[in-house]
This record gives sequence, structure tokens and C-alpha cells, in this order.
Amino acid sequence: MNLADVEAAAQRLAGVAHVTPVLTSRTLDALVDAQLFLKCENFQRTGTFKFRGAFNAVSSLPAEERSRGVCTVSSGNHAQALALAAHELGVPAVIAMPADAPAVKVEATRGYGAEVVMFDRYAVPQHEAGERLRQERGLAFISSHDDPLIAAGAGTAALELLREVGTLDVLVAPIGGGGGMSGYATVAKALLPDVHVVGVEPAASRLASRSLGEGRRVEIDTPRTIADGQQLRVLGRFTFEVLRALVDEVVAVEDAEIVRAMIFLFEHLKVVAEPSGAIALAAVLAGKLDVAGRRAGIVVSGGNVGAAQFAALVGTSPV
Amino acid sequence: MNLADVEAAAQRLAGVAHVTPVLTSRTLDALVDAQLFLKCENFQRTGTFKFRGAFNAVSSLPAEERSRGVCTVSSGNHAQALALAAHELGVPAVIAMPADAPAVKVEATRGYGAEVVMFDRYAVPQHEAGERLRQERGLAFISSHDDPLIAAGAGTAALELLREVGTLDVLVAPIGGGGGMSGYATVAKALLPDVHVVGVEPAASRLASRSLGEGRRVEIDTPRTIADGQQLRVLGRFTFEVLRALVDEVVAVEDAEIVRAMIFLFEHLKVVAEPSGAIALAAVLAGKLDVAGRRAGIVVSGGNVGAAQFAALVGTSPV
Repeated sequence: MNLADVEAAAQRLAGVAHVTPVLTSRTLDALVDAQLFLKCENFQRTGTFKFRGAFNAVSSLPAEERSRGVCTVSSGNHAQALALAAHELGVPAVIAMPADAPAVKVEATRGYGAEVVMFDRYAVPQHEAGERLRQERGLAFISSHDDPLIAAGAGTAALELLREVGTLDVLVAPIGGGGGMSGYATVAKALLPDVHVVGVEPAASRLASRSLGEGRRVEIDTPRTIADGQQLRVLGRFTFEVLRALVDEVVAVEDAEIVRAMIFLFEHLKVVAEPSGAIALAAVLAGKLDVAGRRAGIVVSGGNVGAAQFAALVGTSPV
Repeated sequence: MNLADVEAAAQRLAGVAHVTPVLTSRTLDALVDAQLFLKCENFQRTGTFKFRGAFNAVSSLPAEERSRGVCTVSSGNHAQALALAAHELGVPAVIAMPADAPAVKVEATRGYGAEVVMFDRYAVPQHEAGERLRQERGLAFISSHDDPLIAAGAGTAALELLREVGTLDVLVAPIGGGGGMSGYATVAKALLPDVHVVGVEPAASRLASRSLGEGRRVEIDTPRTIADGQQLRVLGRFTFEVLRALVDEVVAVEDAEIVRAMIFLFEHLKVVAEPSGAIALAAVLAGKLDVAGRRAGIVVSGGNVGAAQFAALVGTSPV
């Protein structure tokens, strides 16, 4: 996957995905003594950056596969993203969701026109639930992250950011399975060879830092963190290689630091970020990386957090 | 005050105030069977539309008055707006604030460089506290709403909205003291003579509907409502005449309806609105006016609500 793949994705997404705003804040800049540019993918369709990759992947399928349909396994943002992408392209979509997934997420996925199939996540491993759908129904399986087309789609957000703000010294983004970061890093290093690329993950996980540190895809237990976009147990095969080549630094933040960043975004920028969406800014606010005097792009990757859930998180914060 | 005054204000504000975004939502449009355009003044500097009017008023003062400085009485958004406007123009500002105003608002006002003078709001009427400052210090008093320059400044938001979206059938905005609505209505009726202009106020107040209904500036007790931008006891002399001439309809919404609109904005548009900022959308969502099949501009006037305060409001909502 390279810059040309991201540019091709951008052409497919033109007029379909939102060109999301880049927000700045004098208060924030003064606080961290840097110039921060927040790429707000929480304003993307379905509320997260996931729509870009899903649409790019589905629209790249051969006509014959598209006519049969697509499937995936997800309890979260990828489910909604794939459902809407398929709907926009007139492609049938079947999503396997855990039977105990939040009803609101199941309804949202159905609301975008997908068929939802429940499975018992304590009896059936996630990849088996997906494999079963693929085989029994003859559907194309669309991974949430481990796919060059997913990464190239996500990368279009970085392309928009760099076209809007010009040069950057640092690019900071969440790392979960690596689909988003693979795309951002590919674009950033192609256009700005000297840019410092920093991934941020929950301290309860450290999946990327361990995997890159040991030079292999370590497997971990599902981490306990509020950052539900980053609860993966292993990096993708494809994304691991891209991250190993292009990510300069990985830092970890605590859940309480994430909540503080969510509150900062709420009170000072008037925008809603979900925990994984606020984690990159959390790393900067918590002083986990040095941005002083520099121009830093920050990916705010999503905004799917309910008001009641946000209220509960605020209640846990000693602010 | 007419369209030319608003255009003059727009020139003064160019490069100083933000051109705030106009947000749209397919989900919202489907829900109300209309095309809604949300003019997001919560993204304005200091977090509300108030900055436009304050900057326009201070920058219009004769040089001699500017050199002596400006003053006002406010516990809320106008205090911060005037403090920043004066700071930007190098004009001294003194703000009288009630001794029991929230510390965070006092700090924000001082943070913009203003001198804050406390007064006991139970012993001294608000207008007296302002009059005292004006006389003792020889400062120019800048009203929060009852001033053609304040209204013309606010009107620049409507000018931006109409330039961006073209024609509208309906314009919906909050009415408090009338400074914002006077400006919006002046612009809307000048550019779109057939537009239906709707003001929205808290059901606990009904100040504008009573005043316009009786044809005089009625005085009420301070209304008990979460919409703290609309807790005025009487309309302005100037704004009353403008509202009487240009506002077609005034509707009232309950606090619970405001909270539901705040939650809708949070969950579906990923933006933060304070209670008075969400009240115009609340009127549409609660079915208080007919927008079916029409293009409606909605002013989201501000976003100054703390995360803890939002959490408390969400806790009161039966969603």
C-alpha cells in the first residue's frame, strides 16, 4: 500500500465521505506551547473514520462479489461503517454481532440497512463467527483493519489534513488494530519524510508497543479500558508490517487521562469524542510526548459515545 | 439598524471573529422531514455569538472613549465576550459580576484580561452596578443586548448563514434580551422578504411572547430555567421595537425539551450546545413549529456548558 492507493481511495470517496473539519484552539495551543491541528473524524459519516475504509473496500470489490454481498464481525464502529458503505453501494451486508452488544449499536447497524446475525461471543470465537458467515453465505469478508484497502481509505483523512495545513512536525493518532494508523503513516511519510509519527494506545493494552518492541505480533487478553475502539488482542498481519516500518514512537495513556481529554474537547472545543477518539489528544495533554514549539496533527478518530455514557465517565473524573 | 449596519459590522469582524460552520445531518432531516441548517455559534470565539456584538460595539467607539475603556454588568457570556473584544482592541475593560457568579466564569473573564469588580446582586440592582462603574470610572457602558451595534454584530452570523446556504423558508433562533434575534431578523427579512422568523424562549419565561402580545415591554420575575442565556426580566427598548416589526412567531419550550435537544446534538452531531444554544433546535424537535418540507436555518447560539453540568442535566432526562 502506498500514496497512490490512498489517492485512488480519495477519488472513490469524493462526494460520499465528508471532508471533515480541522479544528484549532488558541487556548489549547497556549496550554501545550505548540500548534495543534485536530482532524475531526468524529464528524465523519457514522461518527468515525471507519466509514472511509469500509467504503473503499466495498467499492473495490469485483462486480460479482459485490452482487453476492459482504460480511464482517463487529460490535462497534466498523459494523455501522460497513453497513452504511454497503447500503450506499447497493450491496447486501450481513454483520455478525455479539448477542450482548449494546442494543443501540445493533439498531444503528440495522438502521443502515444491514442484516444482523447474533452470535454468543463466549461460545464462538469472533473470527469463527465471521468465517462461518463467509462460507455459509458466500459473502466477501471485510476486515475491520487488516486490509490494505481499509488502511488506504483511512489514509484519506491524513491526505485531507496535510493538504489543508501544509507541513507538520508530528502526527499523533490512535493505534488499535492498526488500520487507521497504517493509512495515516503511509501518507505522512510519503509527503513529509521528516515527520515524527506517534501512535497512542491504552496503558491497559500496550499491544502495539509490545509487538513492535518484540518484533512479532504478540497476543494479549482483551484489555480492560474505556477505549473500546482499541480492545484488540493482536495486530493485523498486514498492519503490523506497516506500523513496524513507519511508526516512530508508541505511547500509552491511562483511562483517566482519556476522560480528561474528552472533557477538554467538550468544554473548550465544543466537540464530542469517544474514548479512542480523544486518546491522541490525551497523550499530548498528559505530556506523554514532546510537541513544544512544533506543529502537530492530532487525529480525533470518532465520536460515538452516548450522552449517558459520557455523563458516567465525567462522574469518574476528579476534575 | 439595517442591513448596511450588519455589513459594516462584518467588515470590522473580518479576520477577528470565526466564520462558524453550518452543520447538516441526514438523520436529523429524516426525523423532522425538512432540511435543517445549523449555524454553529458555539464554535465562535468565547463559545457564543456574543463576541460578534461586543467586538462590533467596542471597535465602533470614538478613539477618546476607547482610550478610557469599557464596562458592563454580566455573570455570563457577555462578560467573556466583552473582555476578549476589549483585549483584542487594546481597550481596558471592567466587568461587574455578582459575587456569587461561578468561579470558572470569573476566571475566564479575568483570563481574557478584564478587571472584574464584584457586587452583591441581592443588595444592588444589576443596572445600578453598571451605572456606578460608568460614572465613577468614566467608562463606556456596553449593554449585553440593547444596542444597535450589538444587534448588528450578531446579525453577521445570519449574513454568513444565508451566503452559505442561499434561500431559507424559516429562520429559528433563541430570544433572550433580543440582541441576537434583532440582528438575525434584520438580515433575514432584508435578504428574504418571505422568510418566516421564529423566536424561541423558555416556557418559564415567555417574556417575548407576552411583550409582543401586549404591545409593551412587560417585566417579569427572573424565570427559573436551565436556559441561563434567557433569564432576562425585560426586553430592551431598542430590541423590543425590532422584534415587534420583524419576528413572525414566538414559541416556548420546556427545560426537558431543551435537554433532549442537547443530547441529540451531542449524540448525532457530536457538538456541545448550552441550554440556550440548543433551544431553537429543541422547538423543532418538539414539534413546536411546522418545518415539514421546508428549508430551515437554526441558530445554535452557544456552547458554554461544563461537562459536569451537562452530566447533571443528562441525569435528569428520562432518555
